[in-house]
Order: sequence, then C-alpha cells, then structure tokens
Amino acid sequence: MKRIEIFDSTLRDGAQGEGISFSVEDKLAITSALDELGVAYIEAGNPGSNPKDLEFFTRAGNLRHAKLCAFGSTRRAGNSVEKDANVLSLEQAGTPAVAIFGKSWDLHVTDVIRTSLDENLNMIRETIAYFKTRGREVIFDAEHFFDGYAENKDYAFAALRAACEGGADVLCLCDTRGAAYLTDIGAAVADICRTFGRRVAIHCHNDTGMAVAGSMVAVDAGAAQVQGTLLGIGERCGNTNLATIIANLQTKRGFSCVPDEQLAQLTPTVRRVAEIANVTLAGDAPYVGKSAFAHKGGMHIDGVMKLPRSFEHIDPDAVGNERRFLLSEVSGRTTVLAAVQRIDPTLTKDSPEVKAVVARIKELEFEGYQFEGAQATVELLIRKVLGVYKPFFELEQYKIIGEQPPVGGRSDTAVIRLRAFGKSEISAAQGDGPVHALDIALKKALTVFYPAVQHIRLTDYKVRVMESRSATASKVRVLIETTDGTASWTTVGVSTDIIAASWIALVDSIEYKLTRDEL
Amino acid sequence: MKRIEIFDSTLRDGAQGEGISFSVEDKLAITSALDELGVAYIEAGNPGSNPKDLEFFTRAGNLRHAKLCAFGSTRRAGNSVEKDANVLSLEQAGTPAVAIFGKSWDLHVTDVIRTSLDENLNMIRETIAYFKTRGREVIFDAEHFFDGYAENKDYAFAALRAACEGGADVLCLCDTRGAAYLTDIGAAVADICRTFGRRVAIHCHNDTGMAVAGSMVAVDAGAAQVQGTLLGIGERCGNTNLATIIANLQTKRGFSCVPDEQLAQLTPTVRRVAEIANVTLAGDAPYVGKSAFAHKGGMHIDGVMKLPRSFEHIDPDAVGNERRFLLSEVSGRTTVLAAVQRIDPTLTKDSPEVKAVVARIKELEFEGYQFEGAQATVELLIRKVLGVYKPFFELEQYKIIGEQPPVGGRSDTAVIRLRAFGKSEISAAQGDGPVHALDIALKKALTVFYPAVQHIRLTDYKVRVMESRSATASKVRVLIETTDGTASWTTVGVSTDIIAASWIALVDSIEYKLTRDEL
Repeated sequence: MKRIEIFDSTLRDGAQGEGISFSVEDKLAITSALDELGVAYIEAGNPGSNPKDLEFFTRAGNLRHAKLCAFGSTRRAGNSVEKDANVLSLEQAGTPAVAIFGKSWDLHVTDVIRTSLDENLNMIRETIAYFKTRGREVIFDAEHFFDGYAENKDYAFAALRAACEGGADVLCLCDTRGAAYLTDIGAAVADICRTFGRRVAIHCHNDTGMAVAGSMVAVDAGAAQVQGTLLGIGERCGNTNLATIIANLQTKRGFSCVPDEQLAQLTPTVRRVAEIANVTLAGDAPYVGKSAFAHKGGMHIDGVMKLPRSFEHIDPDAVGNERRFLLSEVSGRTTVLAAVQRIDPTLTKDSPEVKAVVARIKELEFEGYQFEGAQATVELLIRKVLGVYKPFFELEQYKIIGEQPPVGGRSDTAVIRLRAFGKSEISAAQGDGPVHALDIALKKALTVFYPAVQHIRLTDYKVRVMESRSATASKVRVLIETTDGTASWTTVGVSTDIIAASWIALVDSIEYKLTRDEL
Repeated sequence: MKRIEIFDSTLRDGAQGEGISFSVEDKLAITSALDELGVAYIEAGNPGSNPKDLEFFTRAGNLRHAKLCAFGSTRRAGNSVEKDANVLSLEQAGTPAVAIFGKSWDLHVTDVIRTSLDENLNMIRETIAYFKTRGREVIFDAEHFFDGYAENKDYAFAALRAACEGGADVLCLCDTRGAAYLTDIGAAVADICRTFGRRVAIHCHNDTGMAVAGSMVAVDAGAAQVQGTLLGIGERCGNTNLATIIANLQTKRGFSCVPDEQLAQLTPTVRRVAEIANVTLAGDAPYVGKSAFAHKGGMHIDGVMKLPRSFEHIDPDAVGNERRFLLSEVSGRTTVLAAVQRIDPTLTKDSPEVKAVVARIKELEFEGYQFEGAQATVELLIRKVLGVYKPFFELEQYKIIGEQPPVGGRSDTAVIRLRAFGKSEISAAQGDGPVHALDIALKKALTVFYPAVQHIRLTDYKVRVMESRSATASKVRVLIETTDGTASWTTVGVSTDIIAASWIALVDSIEYKLTRDEL
C-alpha cells in the first residue's frame, strides 16, 4: 500500500476560519489528538504573525507520530534573510519542519506584494536555503499555484525551480482561491511530478465544494502529500476535509494514511477535535457525522436489514461510527419492530401490537410529533401501547408566572404540585424563562420521592415552530436531551403552548430514567 | 451556452435527511422559492408512501418555470400495473412529470426485492409505459446504477434498455450508496450517453464528500440534467448541493442552469429555504455561506483590498452574497451605509453616526442577534442611534400566568399595563401559549391609543435556541413576520427568556408599523 502523507493545518489555516480561535491549551489538546490518530505533519502556527504561537511551540515537545511544522512567508523584498523578523521567529519555533509560502502567480508579485519578478525568485530561493542549512525539512507552499500555472506557466515553473535550488523537500501546490477545476489540477500535478522529481503536496480550498475531490485527483496524478484540516475548517469555505480524505484513500483507493488500527479512531477523534474547537460537527459529515450511516427511507431500512452493503458503502465500524435507523412517517413497520422487540422479543412484524404501535406513531406524527432521535419517547410510547407502562407521578397543577419588570433578577416563577405514593408535594422555583423555572421546580418536587432525579441534567433543548404561517398560536415541537452522567437520551413533546410541549418532553425524560433504573 | 436542467429533490430526497420534516405549508413555500429561482424540475413527494403529499399536489397548482414531479417505484413484483396502489397514487398526483425508480443492480433484485431478474425488467418497462400512454414525461431513476455497472454491466444495461422500451424520456443514473469514484462516473456516463441516445441525468449522494464533483464530471461526460437538493440535504450525508452546482456550472464552466438574472438570487433563495426547512446553513457553504467571501488572514484582506481577484474566485454580487473583512472594523460599514442613507441621505461611510451604528450592530450580534432578514429591527436600531427614534408607548408591567390544568380551555393568561399620551391602559387576554396571550393583550391595550394596530397580524413566528449546551437557560432568538395587509416586515428579539425575546420582537413589529404610518 502506497503511503500518502497527511498534513494537518487545523491550527494554522483552520484558525483562519470565521469564528475559530484557539488558546494554547486548545492547541496542545488538538495536537495530541492528531498525533494519536497518526497524521504525518501538524502545522501548528504562524509565529511571525501570532506571538501566542511561540509559547505553543515551546510547550508542545516531542510527538509520537507526527512532525511539528511552523508556517511563515519568504523574507520580505529588499531584506536580507538573516535580518528578516518573520524568518527569525520561524527559526525560533524550532520545529523539525517548516512550511515557507511564496508567490507563484506573477500577478501577485507585481500587484499585491509589488516587487520584481526576479526578486520574488530570490526571496524563495534564499529563504528555503537558510532553513536547509539549519537542518530543517522544508515544504515550499506555492501560493496560487494553479492560477499562476494557468496565466503564466513559465513563471510558475520558475518559482518551483527557485524552491528546488534552495533545497525544498516538498513542493506544495496551493489552490489558494479554491477555484481550480479537477482536470486542471490533475494535469498540473502530473506535469510537476514529471518535471521536478520532488515530493509534491496538494493544498485545496473548498470554494467550489470540490476540495476533497481535487485532492483525490491530485493523488491519482502522483501527489505524495495531502494538506487540509481534520474538520475541513479554514479561510472562507474551508480547506480539504482530512477526515474524508483519510477514509476515502484508505477504505476505497488502497492507500495508507494513518496506521490501520487507528482508522477506527477517526470518528471519536473528529468529535473530540470539534468539541475543543467549539465547532458543531455537521450531522451529514461523510464517514463521521451522526447521520452518515443513519437510514430514514423505508426501502433503505428494509434493504440494510436484509444486506448492509445494499445501502452502505462501508461498514460504519471501520471508521468508528455506527448505523442508526430513523423513525419517521416515511419508514414503516420494520423500523418499529426492532424497538418493540427490545421490550417484548416474542412479537413479530404481523403482531397486532406492532400494528397498534405504528398506528399510534402515525397519529402522533400527524399532530406534529417527529420521533427521529427521540428514542426515549418512542420506548415509553411502546410501553404505553403494550400496557407495560407505569406512571411514576401525577401532575396536580402547575402555574408559571412570567413578569416584566422581573422580580429579584428572575422573570419567571413556577409553582408545581404533584402526587406520588398517595402523597402530594408542592415546590416553587425561579428561572430564566418559563421552562427553566418549570424544570427546576419539577425536579425539586420529584426528588422527594425519587432521589435519582437529582442526577438528571438537561444537555440540549430544541424548539421547532410548525405550520409557522399561523404565527404565535402555531404548534411547537420541543426536543430535550437529558443525561444522568453515564447515559443520555432524547424526548419530544408537541403542543400549541411551548410550556406544555416542554412539560411533555420533560416528564418523558424523567420517566424514561426511572423506568430504566427499575429494569 | 448549453443548458443543464436542474432537478431539485429537496421535498423528496431532502425530506429523507435526518431531522427534516415538512408541513404542506413548508412545501408550498419551498416550491415557490425554487420556482422563482428558475430550476427546471421540482420533485415534491412520494404520494405512495406519504399520504400528506397528495394534499400538497392538489394545492400546488401551476408553476412559472418548473415542472412538478412526483416520485414512486415501479409496480410490485407479480402485480399488474393497473392495480398497483403505488402506481395509482402516483397517477393521482397529476404532475406533468413522474420519476419512476427501479433496480439496476442485480444484487438488489435477487437479495432485496427478491424477484427474478426478468420480472424486474418487466416492472420497469410496464410502469414507464403506463405513464407514457397517459401523456406524462417520465424520468427513470436507475437506483444503484454505478454499483450495478461495476458488478454486472450487462444487467445494468438491460435495466436501461427496458426503461427505453417503456418510453423513458430521461435515464437518471443514481449513485444511491454515494460511493462511486469520479473516473468511474465519467466513464459510465459517457458510455450511457453514447449507447442510448436519451437525455442522461446524474443523481449523486455525498458519502465520500464528492457529490458535487461527481456531478460536474458527469456533465463533462455528457449528462444533461443534475439532480440534487438546493441545500444538499438528504438521506445520510445528503445529496448533491444544487446551489454549488448552479454556481459552478454557470460562473465557471459556461453552462446555463437558471436565468442569468436569477443567479444573483441564489444566496437569498438558499437562506430562505434553509429558514423554512429549519436547517442551519453552514457558514462555510460555497458561494452562499456567510463566510464564503469573508477574509480573515491579514495578507488575504490586504490582497483583496488591492485587487479583489487576488483572493476571490468570483465577484460575490454575482451570486447575491457579499464580501466581509473579519478582523477589521472596516467590515460592515459598507453594508450598513445603504440602510442608514435611507433615513439620512447626507451621511457617508466615514460619518461617526455610521460607525456608531456598526458598533451597535456588532454588540448585539455578540449577544446572539442576527439581522439578516430582520430589516425592520435594523431600521429601528438605526433610528435609535441617529436620535430620530420616538417610542410610541411604555410598558409598565406584564404578567403571564401559564397553568395546568387549563382554565376554560386556555392555558395562558396575559395581563399588561402600558402607558401612552400620559395615560395608562390595562388589558388582559387568554391564548394558546404565553406569547399568543401576550400578543393579543398587547394589541388590545394599544388599539385604544393607535387604532391602526388592530390591522396588524403576525404571519410567522420562528424560534431558534442558541448555545444549546446550557439547555433550558440558553439564549433564544425569536423572529417575527408581521403584515398589515399590504406591506410585511420582520423583527427579531433575543433573550434567555422566550417570552422576553418575543416581547422585544413584538414591540419592534408594532413600532415599525407606527413609524412607517407617520412618514
């Protein structure tokens, strides 16, 4: 298996994404996650433009698999390398590899950095030579390479030649504007591999939604290294998504990117990095998203149950993800059956109980319920239909008072009275918003009867207004995610009243926990 | 310019995305947005598997540009077409075009639908012929085509031949598992175009992150139609993102997908559809995301200011998006200027008032506001900063009581006291939900001072929960759309309390109307 070097720039190009900002602690945590995954290079900062990065390099130390790389520009026009502040701080980072970026599109030389075409070549050659004589591995980032290649091929070649004269180990062809077309990338990469005989890297941006594809085409054409970011984050529309590239190359194209035993760590690693970067991972992210192996269409579910490969391109386990069947009005009895059998394994697809559950689900869906993901509500619903549901308490009354101006800083007060084991309990609480107050009051009262309730905590709360054209009297669907520290589960409620909808989901979330505890 | 037909399946394959669920009203609104954009086909449902879809087709009526298409399977094995329930409900939908899906991978025939290879060909041929004799345009969706072509090319061809014998107008090659590789797609599409001489469509899924690229390659190889969904939503990792495809083909590859004058509507249309679908549009979405032309790296900003094409692959205006500079306070000012000048035309980009407006907007955005679409709130905000805002009334107090069990069928009561022209007015109202009650009570009290208020009606109410990690105490953003019968406008409010956020947006919606009436 041919090896493809994975070069991760989450901490440098990724940091140029909108809303992305890393503390030194974040950078250390991400570096360690990437290193464990087994990428070849971690580009972790631009010490010339960001002084915080030097602290990171001091603290990063040695890695197990990956080489650390610092990023900086060629010396400035008219400066000597030895006196160039950027070059000096790049050297100070002390990384085994450095990435030096320089211009390979003549338009940028004349109109953006505004120097002579010859001086730009000197800048490339001398800066690279400076680091080579100091024993560093040097990757030359040929900025805007594909635009330069299209508009002035001779000059683009001259820039790469200058880099080779300086001693560059890797020629990285950057599609900095993110618009090079697939066939143009393939042709240029093949041309450069043939002409220069160095390792060639590809660095794409996703402005036309094709960064992954452009990188795949470059590998087909002979590129030995793919640059990008694990989550795809980066300037504008982002960089090549390395999670997708690793899985594509390793599960489908016979290349090796990370150690084989690490591939199953791909999904957990991506989720950890997203957590640290405070980025919401798209549910539909290839290979690693929560929906990547989630089946919703009835035919799809039926097919996967008969033969997984009929609707799955790989085994989800291979990348550490999992298969899920979503419940919806487009799916049918087959999906429901699996859930029913977890409660009563003797029932079959044709049992009247299964039909009754499907009928009840469709009825509730018509009222605006949606059960996808709300597994806990589905389980309680099945128990109700099968007659094995036991209510844990009874609501006698709640009253919520919202007022402006607020009283004591809190605008909402909830008073609740409920009954269990033949006794009534009344409690009150204040909160930010009516549901917050209600949630606290409910748990306060219930803890008297069921102490386990105090360990339950809401982790997510989603509201969807339906039939939105009928405005404030429209129906509202509330989804609640709850955890007790070990497990987590989701429940749903629907009503025209957002408080009533939240109440339904809250009660389900608690009854689910109590039911589970009794099993 | 060669035309490529854009076939949107947001309402069918898109509805198979996790978390997606459309009401009939949503479907009508999305259909009208897609039709205005100028797509060629709108696939809007699967009447055989979802009875709600028939109501949609009855109400959809005629469109300006697009043909409506209903989706369904070939007849079942062993059934006659005339008696097949799916076929009949598909016919009942009455659309000018129908998409018939059938199996072209032998494995699916033998192992999933479990019939004979010959019977499957009969099912394809007869179902298509049934609709052709009834004057419909028929698109044959060859499911799993690329897998079938790779494993048993003869049978994949036989399936397409059966479709042609039935009279299919379009052969749609589906990569149902989403894993076909670029070069395989290109080769197969070219082969089919050459062999069958019918219009060929491509339908990709994004399981390897290359649905857009696969579709581009198919067009290069001769495909005349691209299927996908405007936002890229769909089963598992989603479908081909049509917004990206339209922009790629039309701005870079010399094809025509939508009328030229509509291309600048791409970004607003995508945002509107995302809003209706309640999908968060990724900031880094190519062409239409808020970061697609946002520059953060200092060198990038410098380059763009000297020469936009140095770091931008197209003019953002071409697709209705805008350029933003992230780290500089220059950003925003150009955008805000136009709105400010509508109120005071003497102000310029450098006026301190404009700077103050930008600063106030940034402050509110930091608190969770988002002003896109909420023009009425922006106009009031500018008036407040410029000192030309006049409050129409003052809230003295509101109190909302929500209770279970409900009193007289209504769970919520609002009591409000407000002041105008030196007089206080108190009113009370009941409603379904706290906001509904508050809205009625507010208008009741205000009508005493401003009779025009009685003609105002909310037409839309949307809630988005932000920072969902802190659950019920998270911030809530409420968007309200209001009409007075002639104009309509949108306002926004943010708070941890959903009632307070709604109150802010409600007050703005009324003050905007009263301000306008005075001009």
